[in-house]
Amino acid sequence: MTTTMAARTATRTTGRCASDFGLWRARSLELINGGLEKALGIYQDDRPAAVGTLGRAMAYSLLGGGKRLRPLLALAAGQAVGGRLPAALPAALAVEMVHAYSLIHDDLPAMDDDDLRRGRPTCHKVFGEALAILAGDALLALAFETLARAAGQRPAAAPRVNRALLELARAAGGLSLVGGQALDLSFEKRPLTAPEQPAPPGDLSLDMVRDMEERKTGRLITAALVCGAALAGAEAPEFKRLKRLGRALGLAFQIQDDLLNQCGDPARLGKAVGSDARRGKASFSLTGGREAAERELAALIDDARQTAGTFKAPGGRLLGIIDSLTGRQA
Amino acid sequence: MTTTMAARTATRTTGRCASDFGLWRARSLELINGGLEKALGIYQDDRPAAVGTLGRAMAYSLLGGGKRLRPLLALAAGQAVGGRLPAALPAALAVEMVHAYSLIHDDLPAMDDDDLRRGRPTCHKVFGEALAILAGDALLALAFETLARAAGQRPAAAPRVNRALLELARAAGGLSLVGGQALDLSFEKRPLTAPEQPAPPGDLSLDMVRDMEERKTGRLITAALVCGAALAGAEAPEFKRLKRLGRALGLAFQIQDDLLNQCGDPARLGKAVGSDARRGKASFSLTGGREAAERELAALIDDARQTAGTFKAPGGRLLGIIDSLTGRQA
Repeated sequence: MTTTMAARTATRTTGRCASDFGLWRARSLELINGGLEKALGIYQDDRPAAVGTLGRAMAYSLLGGGKRLRPLLALAAGQAVGGRLPAALPAALAVEMVHAYSLIHDDLPAMDDDDLRRGRPTCHKVFGEALAILAGDALLALAFETLARAAGQRPAAAPRVNRALLELARAAGGLSLVGGQALDLSFEKRPLTAPEQPAPPGDLSLDMVRDMEERKTGRLITAALVCGAALAGAEAPEFKRLKRLGRALGLAFQIQDDLLNQCGDPARLGKAVGSDARRGKASFSLTGGREAAERELAALIDDARQTAGTFKAPGGRLLGIIDSLTGRQA
Repeated sequence: MTTTMAARTATRTTGRCASDFGLWRARSLELINGGLEKALGIYQDDRPAAVGTLGRAMAYSLLGGGKRLRPLLALAAGQAVGGRLPAALPAALAVEMVHAYSLIHDDLPAMDDDDLRRGRPTCHKVFGEALAILAGDALLALAFETLARAAGQRPAAAPRVNRALLELARAAGGLSLVGGQALDLSFEKRPLTAPEQPAPPGDLSLDMVRDMEERKTGRLITAALVCGAALAGAEAPEFKRLKRLGRALGLAFQIQDDLLNQCGDPARLGKAVGSDARRGKASFSLTGGREAAERELAALIDDARQTAGTFKAPGGRLLGIIDSLTGRQA
């Protein structure tokens, strides 16, 4: 199938399945939120007081809203490669736990020093800095525990689980998520150069900002797709296409986030608009200008739709997520 | 074999193998330190500057000394259940990475606020708070990555690796390592009650302190034994004995640490003596008194020696580690 044909098929599939997608999304969110609550249930038994407080700090950030983009992608990817919906659930939960941990640590005073997240005080504002650091640490460990449990008593499932664990560990590691945050911090207050021009020494280039955003955001989105598909028994060619989809989606998501941060509605965004610009924080849309960013965003979404369209139904669920991302107004 | 017989056998084994143990220890330390250096090698390629700095912060803490007690236990446990020395190496490296991460985060200003670790400035004193938090985060992820790689291309090894991953994730989690640190912080400056007396409300009891220390220190030591043995193909009865050994050793190690903190030699200890007492930090030896702690320590070491003696040679290596722990002067 050529990419143009794939794009046409994709469009038709989305149109036909719009209400199906709504039902699937509702059912999936129920599974995801139920699974996350259940995973934190171990903190609600008869625990020493401080351990219970730690659990509440974890729940505050993990269960306190969020679009659940990553776990939805994990579930959709699992079904796109022929798995049943619950097969990819441990991957969905684990990826969301890694995401929640990274937000808690990014918000810390020593990092981005943010007081507000999703319209509520950040974890360290409510529970203090020490417990916020520990809640992040515990969520990261819980992500791997959740995934490691996925094999249960079935040794035959262990290789799939291992593959997912390795992908998640790399995506959460110092060359990806953590390295991206280190780069982001190092970029603050550094002058930004226009695209197409060589970067003067000490200045940021478009390539450097893209690299940072790919590490910080893109790789966990790719991991969501790959881990979900791995648990559902995906094969090598499917992983390759899912990685292409993840790269496009991750960058698209980051560009959209930058655009919204520059001029979104603060009430719907849940954080101060323009805060990145005030801090001089590097962001794609500021580097290349608003129009260039919007063109790039459209091209990435087009590429993502084409790749998603190469999966048989219910690959339409991947398309549904992409389309809901495009329509994001917050 | 009765426990008394086991103890006698154990004593003979240690005597006979003292020089063997020295050679084994030297070879094992070479493997461990080489493996840790190699694992951090990915940061020395052509990386963006901030990612390279992150790698240096990780190396500063991971490669900057330490007795390597946990990785030695992992290797010894792997051999005690019949595996070859390198079989347990990924577990040995992973457990040491988790240990290094926990020390970096424990030392942070928001936590124990320590300036000195192993006689050198702590990670955040050298690299700043943000990079220290990130270096800890990246080491935790790298631990799981290192373990997940252990199966390599051999699907048959995946269930063993999975077992080790689950044990490590639980030992590093919010009910164990992280929960223990949360409890430890919550105990600071709270009055300590004498043992054998019911604790008045708000006071600490011996049981509470023991529980905290078991979570904070004991479970990772147990995980070292269990993960090493898991990679070497251990069976259920062996795991049970290794867990008993881990509990005894973990508590013994913590009590010894408390005693040293109270009255050790600061130059050899690498940190200020009495710092726990000054901060009013809970510690076993302060709660029960010095003599009671020394009696408890001797009983735990005896129990550990008996359990270690139930493994066939080269179980003598477990005994060698226990004996070198007993002789610790630092």
